Amino acid sequence: MEDSFGHIFKITDWGDTHGPYMEGRVEGCPAGIYVDLSFVRSELARRASDGKGFATGRKEPDRVEFLTGLDEAGCTSGAPIVFRIANADVVVSSNRQVMRPSHASFTYFKKYGYKDQELCGRASARQTVCRVVAGAIAKLALQPIGVEFSSEVVSMAAPRCEGDSVGAVVRGHIRNLPAGLGEPVYDKFSARLAYAMLSINAAKGFEIGLGYEAAKMCGSTYNDMQRSDYSFVTNHDGGVQGGITNGEEVFFTVAFKPIPSVRFPQQSITFDGVPAVLEGSGRNDLCVAPRVLPVVEAMAAITTLDFILLADSQKMC
Amino acid sequence: MEDSFGHIFKITDWGDTHGPYMEGRVEGCPAGIYVDLSFVRSELARRASDGKGFATGRKEPDRVEFLTGLDEAGCTSGAPIVFRIANADVVVSSNRQVMRPSHASFTYFKKYGYKDQELCGRASARQTVCRVVAGAIAKLALQPIGVEFSSEVVSMAAPRCEGDSVGAVVRGHIRNLPAGLGEPVYDKFSARLAYAMLSINAAKGFEIGLGYEAAKMCGSTYNDMQRSDYSFVTNHDGGVQGGITNGEEVFFTVAFKPIPSVRFPQQSITFDGVPAVLEGSGRNDLCVAPRVLPVVEAMAAITTLDFILLADSQKMC
Amino acid sequence: MEDSFGHIFKITDWGDTHGPYMEGRVEGCPAGIYVDLSFVRSELARRASDGKGFATGRKEPDRVEFLTGLDEAGCTSGAPIVFRIANADVVVSSNRQVMRPSHASFTYFKKYGYKDQELCGRASARQTVCRVVAGAIAKLALQPIGVEFSSEVVSMAAPRCEGDSVGAVVRGHIRNLPAGLGEPVYDKFSARLAYAMLSINAAKGFEIGLGYEAAKMCGSTYNDMQRSDYSFVTNHDGGVQGGITNGEEVFFTVAFKPIPSVRFPQQSITFDGVPAVLEGSGRNDLCVAPRVLPVVEAMAAITTLDFILLADSQKMC
Amino acid sequence: MEDSFGHIFKITDWGDTHGPYMEGRVEGCPAGIYVDLSFVRSELARRASDGKGFATGRKEPDRVEFLTGLDEAGCTSGAPIVFRIANADVVVSSNRQVMRPSHASFTYFKKYGYKDQELCGRASARQTVCRVVAGAIAKLALQPIGVEFSSEVVSMAAPRCEGDSVGAVVRGHIRNLPAGLGEPVYDKFSARLAYAMLSINAAKGFEIGLGYEAAKMCGSTYNDMQRSDYSFVTNHDGGVQGGITNGEEVFFTVAFKPIPSVRFPQQSITFDGVPAVLEGSGRNDLCVAPRVLPVVEAMAAITTLDFILLADSQKMC
Repeated sequence: MEDSFGHIFKITDWGDTHGPYMEGRVEGCPAGIYVDLSFVRSELARRASDGKGFATGRKEPDRVEFLTGLDEAGCTSGAPIVFRIANADVVVSSNRQVMRPSHASFTYFKKYGYKDQELCGRASARQTVCRVVAGAIAKLALQPIGVEFSSEVVSMAAPRCEGDSVGAVVRGHIRNLPAGLGEPVYDKFSARLAYAMLSINAAKGFEIGLGYEAAKMCGSTYNDMQRSDYSFVTNHDGGVQGGITNGEEVFFTVAFKPIPSVRFPQQSITFDGVPAVLEGSGRNDLCVAPRVLPVVEAMAAITTLDFILLADSQKMC
Repeated sequence: MEDSFGHIFKITDWGDTHGPYMEGRVEGCPAGIYVDLSFVRSELARRASDGKGFATGRKEPDRVEFLTGLDEAGCTSGAPIVFRIANADVVVSSNRQVMRPSHASFTYFKKYGYKDQELCGRASARQTVCRVVAGAIAKLALQPIGVEFSSEVVSMAAPRCEGDSVGAVVRGHIRNLPAGLGEPVYDKFSARLAYAMLSINAAKGFEIGLGYEAAKMCGSTYNDMQRSDYSFVTNHDGGVQGGITNGEEVFFTVAFKPIPSVRFPQQSITFDGVPAVLEGSGRNDLCVAPRVLPVVEAMAAITTLDFILLADSQKMC
Repeated sequence: MEDSFGHIFKITDWGDTHGPYMEGRVEGCPAGIYVDLSFVRSELARRASDGKGFATGRKEPDRVEFLTGLDEAGCTSGAPIVFRIANADVVVSSNRQVMRPSHASFTYFKKYGYKDQELCGRASARQTVCRVVAGAIAKLALQPIGVEFSSEVVSMAAPRCEGDSVGAVVRGHIRNLPAGLGEPVYDKFSARLAYAMLSINAAKGFEIGLGYEAAKMCGSTYNDMQRSDYSFVTNHDGGVQGGITNGEEVFFTVAFKPIPSVRFPQQSITFDGVPAVLEGSGRNDLCVAPRVLPVVEAMAAITTLDFILLADSQKMC
Repeated sequence: MEDSFGHIFKITDWGDTHGPYMEGRVEGCPAGIYVDLSFVRSELARRASDGKGFATGRKEPDRVEFLTGLDEAGCTSGAPIVFRIANADVVVSSNRQVMRPSHASFTYFKKYGYKDQELCGRASARQTVCRVVAGAIAKLALQPIGVEFSSEVVSMAAPRCEGDSVGAVVRGHIRNLPAGLGEPVYDKFSARLAYAMLSINAAKGFEIGLGYEAAKMCGSTYNDMQRSDYSFVTNHDGGVQGGITNGEEVFFTVAFKPIPSVRFPQQSITFDGVPAVLEGSGRNDLCVAPRVLPVVEAMAAITTLDFILLADSQKMC
C-alpha cells in the first residue's frame, strides 16, 4: 500500500545506495512486450553520470539484470518482472553522524529513529535507476500505439560559487496520447502526473499546460477553442481538460530545488544536536538536471501506461 | 480503485450538479470523533456563493444530512460515513449540444461517448461540496492533536472585461503537523499533497515550500539549517524533506486557471462539430477563488489524516 | 480499503436494516451494458421473502432505484453506479439490550463499543439486497460472452422443533467461463471465490470441485486427465487448476450455519452481562436457503467479472 | 494489485522453483520487531523435506538472507523487508512438453501462452517458502501480545498403491486473539482467512468453526451462549461471529487434494495435444501434509497481523 506507484502497471523497488544492488519489480505489464535491452541500456546511459560538470564523480555502468518476468525470447511473460542493477562504486562516507541540511537525514531520524546518515540510502537519487528501467518497459509497451515521450531542461540556476549546487526546471512532453485517459474526479490524469513528478527526489513544483501563467489569465484569452474537425486552435490546457486527456500534446514542468550536498563545508548538527561541520565531497551531483530527464520521462510513461491499462479494464475486450 | 482519494481515510462521492443530491462516503474514519455540525456548516458556508462579485448567481443552502456512520451522540461510529447535500437550485441549460471550451465537454465525449453538456455534471465544481464535508470531518479528527489548516488567495488575475473569468493562486498552510509523516519513495507527503491539489477542478500547478523559486537558487542559500535544539533557521523546504514532514509548517500554493465559462457569448462547436455560439450565463463563478479555499484546506486535511492513520498502522498500538 | 469487494469491478454499500434505505455503489463497470430492470427485479424477487415456511414474515417490494451511473437509454455510462432500495417494513425490536447469541451483537460491541442490538443493522442479511443488484449488473455484463450462473440447495438440516432455525449447504455453478482467469499465487480464482462466499452472512465453509472429498482421494483416481482436443475426462478440480480457470465448469459449495434467531425464547445476557431472555419473533428467516441462492450467484458473478476485467487490463487492447 | 496478500502487512514474492532464488518482500511491518533468525530457521525447517516418506527427495537447506529492512541489531526498521532463499537442488525435468494432469500446466498455457512445463515454476509449492518467512515475521510481531498459532493434520487419505499421492485435511488454531478484529461486510475475518487458505497450493476447501457440520444443525443446539462474565459456553462459531473475532479460539480446517504428481507413469498429452506418458519422479511430495503446516500457520499469522494493524489505523494513537 504505502510505497509503490501505479494502479495496474505498478512499480515497487528497494535497495540502498550503499548496498550491493538496487532492485525493482514491475507488476501488471501486459505479456508479449519485447524488452529491447539496448533501449533499456540507452535510457540508463542517459541517467548515468559522465563524472563531469555538475555530475557526480561516482560512475557506474548500470548493467540491468532481469531476474524473472521475461521469457526466452526476451518478451514480457505476463508475470511480474523483477530486475536489479549492481551498485558498483560504493564508498562509505566518513562523518555519518552529521546530518545533511535539507536532506532526509532529520526526517528519517524522526520517522524511523535512525541516527546514521548511511541509513538514509533510500533517499538517494540512486533509487531512480529503478524508475528508469520500469519507464523503459512502459515506453516499449506504448511504442506500438505511437505514444512518445521527451523532455528538456528549461532553466538552471547559476552557481554562486564553484562547488555550489543549483536548482532547475525541466519540461516534459507526451505526444500521440489517446483522448479519454484519466478519471473524472480524484484520479485526474493531471493529478496522477503531479503525484508521479513530485515523488522524484528534490521536486518542489509541478505545472501542466500554462500552469502558473494560467493563473494570471482571463477565460476569454485562455480557453482552447476547437474547430469543426475537433482540432484545437491553442493548447493552453496542456492536453488535459476536466482531468482527462483530449488528444493534444501533454506538456508539463517540474521544479527541482538545489541538491542538498555541495562541494564545500556546510555548518550543521549531528543527530544528537551537536554543532558540526559537514565536509563536502565530489560524490554528489550539483544539479538534478540533466540526469533527471530520463527519470521524468519514465514517470510520465509509467503514469500513461497505467491509465491505458485502466481504460482497457473499463471495457469488455 | 479508480476514483477515490486516500489509503485509509478515504473519500468517494457521486451525484451530478443537475441531479437531486451530491452524496459522499468517508471510509476509515476513527470511531469517537464528535462531528460538530455547526463546524461542518461553517465550512460549507465558506464554500457557498453569496451570489455577488465573481461568484455564481446559483445560491444553495448546502444542508448536509448524515445517512449513516454517526451514532446517536453525533460521534463517528467507526463504520463508513455517508452524507448527502441536496442540489437546491437546479436549472437545465438551454444549449446542451454546444461544447464548453476548455471544459470537460470534449473529454467526457471521448471517454464516455456522451454528446450532451448535461452529462458532464460530475465535472462541475459542485462536486467539491463533498470534499468540504469530508475535510471538515478530517479537521475535527485532527483538532485534538492540534493540527491546523488555513489558506488565502495570493493573487488573482484582473478581468479583461466585465463578465470575463480569471485565474488565481492560492496558498495553503498546515501547522503543528507531527514530524515523520510520508513514505520515502513514491508516497512522499509532498507527492500525495500535489495529487490531492491537482485533483481539484481547474488546478494547473502546485508548489511546496519555495517551489519554482527554489529552482532559481543555490544550495548554499537554499538549505534549511538546524540549530542544536533541532529548530530550523529557515523553512524553504516547506516542512517536507526527503518526502517526509519535519515538523515545520507545511506551506504550498495551487495555481488555478480561469473558469471555462464566462458571462458573454463564446464561439465553439457542437458535439457533432458544427460551429455554434455558447451563450454566457450568470450560473457560474468567474474565479475559483475565494470559494475554493475551504476545498484546498479540505484536501490538505484528508491527506494529512490519511498519513497519520497510516503511521498508526505502522506500529503495534 | 476495508470493506468493499473487487479489484476493478468493485461493490461497496451501506445502510442499516432499520434505516430508510440500503444503498450500494458499483465502480469499474464497463460502459454500454444495458441494465435490464426486469432482470434486476427478477433477481431481487428470488431473494425476497414470500412470508412462508422458513422465510421471514417481513415482506418488502425491494424496488431498486438507480441514482447515478445509467444514461437515458438505461445503459451503464462508465461512471460509478449508485442505487438504493427502500426498507419498507421496519419494526424496532423491543429488547434492544439483550444480545442475540452467535450473532454480531457481542463482536460489534467489542469492535465499536455499541450496547444496542439496533446498531447491529449492518450485520443483517438485509445487506445482501445490494449484492444481488450488483450481481445482476455483473451477470448482464457477462451475458454477451455466454457466462452463466446457477445454484441450488444441496442439503438442509431438519428442524428439531417448530420455530427452530437450520443450516444448509448450497452449490453454485459457473458455466462457459473462459480459461486463463485468476492470478497464480495469492489471487487464485478459487481463493477470491472463497473470500466472496465466506463474506456472506452465516457462511462457515467453502469447497471448490470435490473439496473435502478430494482430501480423501489419491492422485491416481483424482487427477483430471485431458484428451487430445484438450477436453477433460473428469472435472474433480471444479474448473480451477493452479488457481486459474481451465474452461471447465466451476462448481463449488458453501456451508451456512443455522440463523442465530429462532422463533422461541433463548437464554442470553444483556450487553452489560445481566442474564436475560431473548424473545423470538417471526421477523427472521429460519434458514438462509433458499433466499441465499441469488446472493451466492451474485458474489460469483462479481468475482468472475472482476477477473475478466483484470485480464483485459493485462493486455493492450 | 494482482498478486500480493494483505492490506497493510503485505507479502509479495517472486522467483521460480527452477531459478536461483525465491525472493519475498514484506511491506507494512511495524518497526522495532526483533527478527529472531533461529525462529525463522526453525519455521523453515518445519517446512523442509526430510527426503523420507511422503516428502520429496529434493532436500534444501533453505537459508534465508535478508537483503533490506532490518537494522544492525536485527530489528525491523519500518522499511519494506526483502529476503531470499537460494534454490539449492535444481534439476531440469526431462519431458517439459508433457502437461502434468490437474496441475497448472494447462491453465498457465491458456493464461500466458507457455508451452513448457519449466515455465510453470511459480505454481510449485516451493513458493511457500516465502510465505513461511513472512509468517515467521508476523508471528514474532504478534508474540508480545500473546497471539499463538498451531496446526495439525486431521486426516490423510490412504495411498492406493506405493508411489500414489494423497489428499489431507489440516486444522489450524489461533489463540489469544483480541476480540473486534474483522470488518463487518466483505472483509470479514473469516472471509480473509478463507482467501488466505485457498491461496495455498492444492487447497480445495475451508471451514471455520464447525463448518459443514454446522450446516446440519439447528440454531437451538448450535448457538454459542454467553455467561454473565461474557465467557462462552461453547465455541461452535470458531471465534468469529458476524465476521468479527469474539476473543475465543479461532479454529479452521483446510482440505488439500492429492498432489498432481505421482511416482509412476501417468497418461497425459503434450502442450500440442499429442498423447504422451508423463514419467514419475521422486522430486515431488506425495502429500502436502505435514510440510504444509507451517504454511497454514504463516497465512493465518499474516491475516491476523494485517487485521491488527488495520484496527490500529482505525483509531488515533
